[in-house]
Amino acid sequence: MLTYSFDNVDVPLYEYIYKRIREDILNGTIPPGTRLPSKRTFAKNNGISTITIQNAYDQLISEGYITTSPRRGYFVADIKDIPGTPRTGSVNLEIKLPAERIFPCEVDLADNRTAPDNFPFSVWNRIIREIISTRGRDLMQPSFCAGVRELREAIASYLISFRGMLVDPNQIVVGAGTDYLYGLIIQLLGRERVVCLESPGYSKPEKVYRANSVRCCYAGVDENGIDIDDLRRTPADVVHLSPTHHFPSGVTMPVTRRYQILAWANEKDGRYIIEDDYDSEFRINGKPLTPLFGIDAGEKVIYINTFSKSLASTVRISYMILPEHLANKFYRMLSFYSCTVSNFEQYTLAEFIKKGYFEKHINRMRLYYSRKRRDILKCIAESSMSTFCEVVENDSGLHFLLKIKTDIRDEELTLAMASKGINLRPLSGYYLNGEEKDLHLFIINYSNLDVNDVKKAMDTIYEYITDFREII
Amino acid sequence: MLTYSFDNVDVPLYEYIYKRIREDILNGTIPPGTRLPSKRTFAKNNGISTITIQNAYDQLISEGYITTSPRRGYFVADIKDIPGTPRTGSVNLEIKLPAERIFPCEVDLADNRTAPDNFPFSVWNRIIREIISTRGRDLMQPSFCAGVRELREAIASYLISFRGMLVDPNQIVVGAGTDYLYGLIIQLLGRERVVCLESPGYSKPEKVYRANSVRCCYAGVDENGIDIDDLRRTPADVVHLSPTHHFPSGVTMPVTRRYQILAWANEKDGRYIIEDDYDSEFRINGKPLTPLFGIDAGEKVIYINTFSKSLASTVRISYMILPEHLANKFYRMLSFYSCTVSNFEQYTLAEFIKKGYFEKHINRMRLYYSRKRRDILKCIAESSMSTFCEVVENDSGLHFLLKIKTDIRDEELTLAMASKGINLRPLSGYYLNGEEKDLHLFIINYSNLDVNDVKKAMDTIYEYITDFREII
Repeated sequence: MLTYSFDNVDVPLYEYIYKRIREDILNGTIPPGTRLPSKRTFAKNNGISTITIQNAYDQLISEGYITTSPRRGYFVADIKDIPGTPRTGSVNLEIKLPAERIFPCEVDLADNRTAPDNFPFSVWNRIIREIISTRGRDLMQPSFCAGVRELREAIASYLISFRGMLVDPNQIVVGAGTDYLYGLIIQLLGRERVVCLESPGYSKPEKVYRANSVRCCYAGVDENGIDIDDLRRTPADVVHLSPTHHFPSGVTMPVTRRYQILAWANEKDGRYIIEDDYDSEFRINGKPLTPLFGIDAGEKVIYINTFSKSLASTVRISYMILPEHLANKFYRMLSFYSCTVSNFEQYTLAEFIKKGYFEKHINRMRLYYSRKRRDILKCIAESSMSTFCEVVENDSGLHFLLKIKTDIRDEELTLAMASKGINLRPLSGYYLNGEEKDLHLFIINYSNLDVNDVKKAMDTIYEYITDFREII
Repeated sequence: MLTYSFDNVDVPLYEYIYKRIREDILNGTIPPGTRLPSKRTFAKNNGISTITIQNAYDQLISEGYITTSPRRGYFVADIKDIPGTPRTGSVNLEIKLPAERIFPCEVDLADNRTAPDNFPFSVWNRIIREIISTRGRDLMQPSFCAGVRELREAIASYLISFRGMLVDPNQIVVGAGTDYLYGLIIQLLGRERVVCLESPGYSKPEKVYRANSVRCCYAGVDENGIDIDDLRRTPADVVHLSPTHHFPSGVTMPVTRRYQILAWANEKDGRYIIEDDYDSEFRINGKPLTPLFGIDAGEKVIYINTFSKSLASTVRISYMILPEHLANKFYRMLSFYSCTVSNFEQYTLAEFIKKGYFEKHINRMRLYYSRKRRDILKCIAESSMSTFCEVVENDSGLHFLLKIKTDIRDEELTLAMASKGINLRPLSGYYLNGEEKDLHLFIINYSNLDVNDVKKAMDTIYEYITDFREII
């Protein structure tokens, strides 16, 4: 017994022996209670030093696989008694995963993902390959807490050319997704400040704030963006906005309102504006306005943007630009954090931007999206729904609103469509303060939509709302 | 004037015209006050529709580059007056970056990075290439909040084979670095619980807790790990530990103490243990003990590990394993978070583990580190310092302690060495509770150390401490 082959052993010998014996104990080849050969016998039989066997046995003892008593020898333990014993097989706990859709979804009119085929796989692949073969040392050098210098410089020069923003690369902090950056901002500004959110609005920031024990309040949105009077009625010191393109209404904040919001921030020390510029690259008509950050003279604006919209929702790279004093605070307080984006992707993205591929990609996508938008608008106009709906156009990025002429309550229509495999999201669902309104406005996110699917969806909605009319 | 070439225009025409004019305004070719041609003239001269020119002019007006007054025409504005105007050049703010070392460092005895040449670049590169060419769809599918299933399954089966841990992949949450995971744990457990840290200990977790407004307290460490009596004297409900290999002392917590700490946790509802298993793969002598997580019957232990030590410090992939009820709480409360690791790296790592490369890499590195350790210990034993120091050996991962026989205070010796380009870190610097002790114990992190550098460092220390003796 206990004869093992010692050819091709690529781990320390004692470890190999320990492993083989453990394996045999676990699979029952050596049953519980078996007495193992003495160290000396085992060693001699296999031409191995006693110390090696001793080490292997010691390890087995320390893990409870064998027991020993002086002068009696070594005995295999009952593995059922060993806590944490490796078992084969698997474990299935009662873990309830986040709710999936109850109905399978065939057409998702609210899908905000980027279209998978549009990702520039071949260029990306080529750049990664180059980076790995030529930049090995840099790849293994821990990234600066705010991200590697090269990427921050590439972002800064992109911002100068395409967004008219002049920033010091040291103001830029790179992180794995905007959620993560919201978390850093909370740590930077402290948890005491109340944050005001736009309602209706994007619900993610609120969830992050609440999970981090930050108090939230809400201000309404009119045709020029956040309602300043509403904001003034709140106890907020921080306001979280998307002036370039409000979600979901699509409103672009005009210059006057921008100066009003800056004025609000400048009225009191410690007030800040978080400017979420998430899809500014894809304004269809006209170039985006200069961001708030660009006209802020009082160091009040924290600018956030992401490559999730412009590149792919699964590339987790976002960045924020801090005003000078907050950049200093960041380095003073939070520089112990390691950057959350891997060096491989930081250097790849830096090259992608520097070599002009990002600009090309954006231009290609802008064209793609404007055609997509045109085709989908045409499809709606030619569909049975044309007389029962109206497209609320704005110069927004990747979605528009569809006003459906019906008396059916938003919730009912949404549920009815869900049961037919169509995901329809009412604007009313985005009121963060829980207001219940039947606006009959629905969000059409077209970045990943197929024209034929839209046609199918329009027909289904048409059928439902006309049936409803007939019943009445 | 205003003659532009319209060949090779790859953006919408109005945008092209807008850009050219803006460029000419910015570089002074069209000076402020200049009257622009009327839309009709411009359109006719260039064979373009008036609408296109209208759009370009509108954009210039909205950004403030030109002004218009009815029946007078369009005039170039003074760009000095335009807030946020794009400028060429750069901006350098007064941003103070985190303190660099005051003295340049030639030999870093405390360097805890992995050696750059050891990263399996070619395999990694091949897998990324394969993933990009065959898994495009998956790469573009947003990752599940806890990470892609494939990676969590790969980690689970690795843990069964090499760590004796049986876990449900749905207990595993993948994140970009342990710092990030600490942040999630805080959100999961709430900010009200006081966290007890080991002192001396690794300072990073404390910084994360404090930046997130979590109260911290400390317990001492004896030769068996955290001092339970000390822990009992604190108001802590959560304890953060590294039982496999305490940093910096290197202590491995024996089984008895493990059960004591579990007993502490089980005495009261809401008590938890955070088990940081950061370099368990690299125990030199013997296999690591089963982690606390493996012997925890009360759902008290949150296990954390990282690929930063085992693969490369710049690959930002870590994971935590939650007990069943906390996994459920995570999905209920925090599933709105997007996973912070990019899909590209999640799928690459999953393949790397599944195909056995990770195991091979670990085995190769274990051999590499044990040789490195042996060589460095030999170098110290043969150096001038041999009679003035003692290596405090333990079975620890990638560092050991060096006791220097001297009366020189730790701080003085550290500063003196720094001025000679040697980074020496005293154990006493790791007392989180600010205790000042001169232990004459220094940390030697050998994962990235060169033997010749160690020799140089030993000679320099020798010279300094013997000079000091002579002076006395």
